[in-house]
Amino acid sequence: MNLHHRFEISLPHWIDEFVGHWLNQNRSGLDTPEHRMELAIALAAANVEQGTGGPFGAIVVQEETNRLAGVGVNLVTGINLSSAHAEIVALSLAQIATGSWNLGKLGPMQLVTSCEPCAMCFGAVPWSGVTSVVCGARKEDAEAAGFDEGDKPVNWTESLHQRGIEVRLNVMRDEAARVLQEYSEGAGTIYNPGKNI
Amino acid sequence: MNLHHRFEISLPHWIDEFVGHWLNQNRSGLDTPEHRMELAIALAAANVEQGTGGPFGAIVVQEETNRLAGVGVNLVTGINLSSAHAEIVALSLAQIATGSWNLGKLGPMQLVTSCEPCAMCFGAVPWSGVTSVVCGARKEDAEAAGFDEGDKPVNWTESLHQRGIEVRLNVMRDEAARVLQEYSEGAGTIYNPGKNI
Repeated sequence: MNLHHRFEISLPHWIDEFVGHWLNQNRSGLDTPEHRMELAIALAAANVEQGTGGPFGAIVVQEETNRLAGVGVNLVTGINLSSAHAEIVALSLAQIATGSWNLGKLGPMQLVTSCEPCAMCFGAVPWSGVTSVVCGARKEDAEAAGFDEGDKPVNWTESLHQRGIEVRLNVMRDEAARVLQEYSEGAGTIYNPGKNI
Repeated sequence: MNLHHRFEISLPHWIDEFVGHWLNQNRSGLDTPEHRMELAIALAAANVEQGTGGPFGAIVVQEETNRLAGVGVNLVTGINLSSAHAEIVALSLAQIATGSWNLGKLGPMQLVTSCEPCAMCFGAVPWSGVTSVVCGARKEDAEAAGFDEGDKPVNWTESLHQRGIEVRLNVMRDEAARVLQEYSEGAGTIYNPGKNI
């Protein structure tokens, strides 16, 4: 085993064309949390279809301009990194794009994720500087599909609220949960060190 | 703002020589949690001295062989990524080195961190496959130095224990806390979107 000094996280090649096509087809763009969630869910579904990772998608949107600052999909199994969840990928790419680890410096910034954040991604939210989080599927939906979401504080939305981060739950929940369910029925890899390996 | 497709996390250039030198000077190597913690704390202190990030260091050790699988220091301010905490860097580099997102596949694997994990890194631990975690400084020590550690579940060690992950706290706590205290007295950047920017 050699000591390694660097790692890289890259979005899959299909993402660029997919997002461009989506924005062309959806002329109202990213103007509401619901429209933003449509893109996050579409990314989750496409990630499964393309075979590049788990059924999770996330985007970061600059709220004042409705511009897309970052895009993420789950890449854990594709690149062998357990922290490459959709939210971490989208937040990191937004930070690279904006040149700051504190996204809030640029005005209100929203993380829109096809599923409520797991314990790790919940913890990552305040460090990123986003000012609001919009979630589709719930922890229970991910667990019903076989995923382990980890242990968040019971009052996790209140914890974020107290840090000035607004949380909106259940936005297009049924559509988001359907992607998880279909993935689980298709017997995709459920990456869970404790149970499945 | 352009959409970005990739980001890279690289260890600072000084790390290789530093770790090589440390292993040469410490002939007992990484045979106990205490000796492993000495290296994690030394990395935290050197990271501050070299100006490459915050006062946090972590290593991943293959327990059966005492071999170093991964090394990490906090790189948040250096590379503008809020998730580049020492633990995430060390776990990710160990996963790249071993070719698996599930480190537990290779036998017992230990994360040794100069400070108790923050909320994000706590959540990242079960996904990584490590089988034990050894912590130096406590949340209270980091907070006393001005850092926000986030909200973990109250029973976070029990949560890890129930997933088969052993946690040992307060290993060389005083030495580890001193690095945090010295950093804070030196007025280094405390990166905390809510309070300091």
